[in-house]
Amino acid sequence: MSPSNSSGGEALCRVAVLLFPGADILDFAGPLEIFSHASHNKNPDAPQPIFSAATAGRPGQTSIPTGHGTLLIQPQLSIRELLDTLSTFDVLVVPGGPLQVIQTVVGQEDGLELEVIKAFFKLGPKEGGGERIMLSVCTGAYLLGAAGVLRGLKVTTHHRALDGLKGVCDKDGIDSKTEVVGGQRFVDAGIVKDGLRIVTAGGVSSGLDATLHVVELVKDRDTANYVAGLTEYERRQV
Amino acid sequence: MSPSNSSGGEALCRVAVLLFPGADILDFAGPLEIFSHASHNKNPDAPQPIFSAATAGRPGQTSIPTGHGTLLIQPQLSIRELLDTLSTFDVLVVPGGPLQVIQTVVGQEDGLELEVIKAFFKLGPKEGGGERIMLSVCTGAYLLGAAGVLRGLKVTTHHRALDGLKGVCDKDGIDSKTEVVGGQRFVDAGIVKDGLRIVTAGGVSSGLDATLHVVELVKDRDTANYVAGLTEYERRQV
Repeated sequence: MSPSNSSGGEALCRVAVLLFPGADILDFAGPLEIFSHASHNKNPDAPQPIFSAATAGRPGQTSIPTGHGTLLIQPQLSIRELLDTLSTFDVLVVPGGPLQVIQTVVGQEDGLELEVIKAFFKLGPKEGGGERIMLSVCTGAYLLGAAGVLRGLKVTTHHRALDGLKGVCDKDGIDSKTEVVGGQRFVDAGIVKDGLRIVTAGGVSSGLDATLHVVELVKDRDTANYVAGLTEYERRQV
Repeated sequence: MSPSNSSGGEALCRVAVLLFPGADILDFAGPLEIFSHASHNKNPDAPQPIFSAATAGRPGQTSIPTGHGTLLIQPQLSIRELLDTLSTFDVLVVPGGPLQVIQTVVGQEDGLELEVIKAFFKLGPKEGGGERIMLSVCTGAYLLGAAGVLRGLKVTTHHRALDGLKGVCDKDGIDSKTEVVGGQRFVDAGIVKDGLRIVTAGGVSSGLDATLHVVELVKDRDTANYVAGLTEYERRQV
């Protein structure tokens, strides 16, 4: 996992996906699907990828619930390795999960997951210039809120979790001035500080639309629409 | 992995998901997402699952491409274990992938993946009665076609792969009488033989609609709509 260029010489946009036990499968598989099909040459038989994506999690396999079952995923990086190489990543994806899972992640004694979010927030522009993007899907926004990076921003999350997110952002009784809105597939809060954009998606499948938006930001609308067509996905704004 | 009942005593519908290196991530993650949220009591905080889902693949970890990157998944069962316990499964999900990946799977010397499909086709009704369901997503239909189980059926696949699927079904120059149609999220061919229904989905994200259809078949429309709402997914017929 070293910074590298695609064969055509255009720099790859490097995506890190934070995994934790109990994360919702579509919250991270949706973005991975979209990133995997975004290519420079629009030839599905010989794509020239725009993104590379690496998963990062606690050591060992990460268990992802699938109803009365479990999917075991081996993250490519440990969270500590991600922290050590964080400045080489351009996009950070933070999936969600059931609230008890999110609470467990927030309550981790070593606080590594929140540390990744805080550290990515502080990075500044990409090496070589240009914005980085932090994307939460579903209740992944709670992790951003708990890390304190949503202050003063307009954001969204799963429709059942809107009030809860506001509470997470206003922790310790301090009004975060975070505006939590519903009824949208995603909210792009824009450039929230030098070199960083924050995009929050609504629930689960909304992550597909939010990721297509990221493709549009990193490349162009034509490419995002191409990926939507290839995956037979109809883009939605609401 | 033994046949078991959910805590409420209602029998779980047991799903096996066939994995192979290079499978498209959303092709199998979409169905797993939908199955994981289908519950008897519609309480997301204490769901009583309707489905259990197990993945099966070649020994070791299965590599799933994510653009210029790879996701490593540890299947819960080897394909041989799946074959040995196949009669305990009620639903078989066969994802797709790029055509060169599918060709590699079809060309496996030991033919284990196709053997699973052929064996599931031959099983007959569930233990205790009732239909089993075989569901392909995207070019997963090629594997069903190569296994010879689509003869005489109306089916679909990815929009770029419609003609190719017809060719796979008509192998050895014999007209399979398979009718390959486009422009639909999925085609339910109905009960194709005693105890078996075959559903083929269109490309990638179509698997979400096809799986919601399976939820509707196994449980009811209200539950399928509940899962669609929970995952913020708008069901589509075309």
